[in-house]
Amino acid sequence: MTIQCDADVVRDKFLSCHGNVIKSLKNFDLEVIEQTEKWIRDEGGGGETCSFSNGKCLEKGGINFSDVHGNNLPPSALKDRPELTGSVFRAMGVSVVFHPINPNVPTVHANIRFFTTTDRDGNAVWWFGGGFDLTPYYPILEDVIFWHKEAKELCDRFDINLYPKFKEQCDKYFYLPHRKETRGVGGIFFDDFTLTDFETSLEFCEGVMSVFASSFFKIFEKRKMMPFTVDEQAFQSYRRGRYVEFNLAYDRGTHFGLQSGGRTESILMSMPPVAKWEYNWKPKPGSKEENLYENFLKPRDWLNLHK
Amino acid sequence: MTIQCDADVVRDKFLSCHGNVIKSLKNFDLEVIEQTEKWIRDEGGGGETCSFSNGKCLEKGGINFSDVHGNNLPPSALKDRPELTGSVFRAMGVSVVFHPINPNVPTVHANIRFFTTTDRDGNAVWWFGGGFDLTPYYPILEDVIFWHKEAKELCDRFDINLYPKFKEQCDKYFYLPHRKETRGVGGIFFDDFTLTDFETSLEFCEGVMSVFASSFFKIFEKRKMMPFTVDEQAFQSYRRGRYVEFNLAYDRGTHFGLQSGGRTESILMSMPPVAKWEYNWKPKPGSKEENLYENFLKPRDWLNLHK
Repeated sequence: MTIQCDADVVRDKFLSCHGNVIKSLKNFDLEVIEQTEKWIRDEGGGGETCSFSNGKCLEKGGINFSDVHGNNLPPSALKDRPELTGSVFRAMGVSVVFHPINPNVPTVHANIRFFTTTDRDGNAVWWFGGGFDLTPYYPILEDVIFWHKEAKELCDRFDINLYPKFKEQCDKYFYLPHRKETRGVGGIFFDDFTLTDFETSLEFCEGVMSVFASSFFKIFEKRKMMPFTVDEQAFQSYRRGRYVEFNLAYDRGTHFGLQSGGRTESILMSMPPVAKWEYNWKPKPGSKEENLYENFLKPRDWLNLHK
Repeated sequence: MTIQCDADVVRDKFLSCHGNVIKSLKNFDLEVIEQTEKWIRDEGGGGETCSFSNGKCLEKGGINFSDVHGNNLPPSALKDRPELTGSVFRAMGVSVVFHPINPNVPTVHANIRFFTTTDRDGNAVWWFGGGFDLTPYYPILEDVIFWHKEAKELCDRFDINLYPKFKEQCDKYFYLPHRKETRGVGGIFFDDFTLTDFETSLEFCEGVMSVFASSFFKIFEKRKMMPFTVDEQAFQSYRRGRYVEFNLAYDRGTHFGLQSGGRTESILMSMPPVAKWEYNWKPKPGSKEENLYENFLKPRDWLNLHK
């Protein structure tokens, strides 16, 4: 197995995932405005950034592909492998963030990524990472259960031990310690990951992107016409502030991008169109907003709620 | 000199600075809504958070005092003194951020802080830090020069070498590497700082707060009635996104607060009321917005522009 060859296979598959999500979005929202840029990174590699805005249903979003290489793997890529810091590397990824207009539709994020590098003895090392997570404003329980059911079905096709592990990792990763809140209702998250072999690992990542897209667009379709008030939209803007807090203060993907000299506008495409902060805001007792805080912003076993 | 005694003197003076800025703001904006909370920190100490919103001129702001202590000085306090990580410490500070309504009035930030700790040999170690910086949206050159002139006059009263050094440190600190922009037009910034003795160092910090307030309210008064358009307000929201990016991704004060288990709502009081992100936005050639980017978001010697 030559790593160079594997990486090119990953590139082809990732580009195909990238193209598929773009197609799905454009079929779903015929009015969305697309801006596409191919960019080249000074230190090596580049990518394709597809930004979307002002759709009929989608307020702002992005579908990114990147394939970068360099001589100095940044520490943010290496939480559990500090010995590889500074190695020659190639990193590839597909990242998606959608901020829908309707506050009854969650914000969603999905990502798959692939790293290759060499250890001190010159041996090739590679791994995958990725996942998807859902951030509702006015959560609908059946959608959250559906989201996790789809995630579990995908995982179970490969290994029945994956879902519980990846679900827990997702709850841990998308957590705002300063707020003592999860970012949303989670999903799955994996890093430094390989299955039995390279092909199966790659196949799992392709599954992540396709299951994310099919599940999310089903939820989007179901809720996009729900009525909402100006106050609910203001609450959405307030909660989008949490999304900003997480991405800028904690997200390793954002830090990796900025540290590795990535293209800023592509990395920060995950930012919401608008975010609000209000000092010491608290939900009213018994309100729909309190329901979010009380019942959805903490890790729960969504597929066994009545256990 | 006993450190305990010194710290209590600092506390009194810092509280008095805190009170003075509050008085100045309330005299300036008679309609501003105040919310005050005294809070206690689980691990030791506490503070007073004064939040302001929905004024006639001030959209959102905060004036914080905190005095916290603990057994484990966080690394963000110690950029140049890693050997003190994990020491017993007491940290005090006054922090101010104002986000005016009118985009012709800059956002402003000021801070003074004091740390005491002990080194490995049990010797007391203490230092001050602080500064102020101005973040205009539609900058007016004479205001920027006035701001720096006042800063220089304060510094020169203590040591004529301070202003050039602190001005440069400010440009370096309030810099967004991923945007290749300064946060605004700067001012002064100092850290790990002592003058000839404790009393003079403290006096300098008091000067920082009083000069910040007098300079800023003069600019605020002069520009608060300038007309502005909806588009200019949208640009202000867009640029406030940069303020968010800096504070969450880079600001050591924010990181220190969050890492040391500070009160989140007090720390994030620096957030603007609203911020916007727009993919790949660029100012139009020849516009007022381009003037900001071209002439103000890079370090310049404001007091010797024609040199």
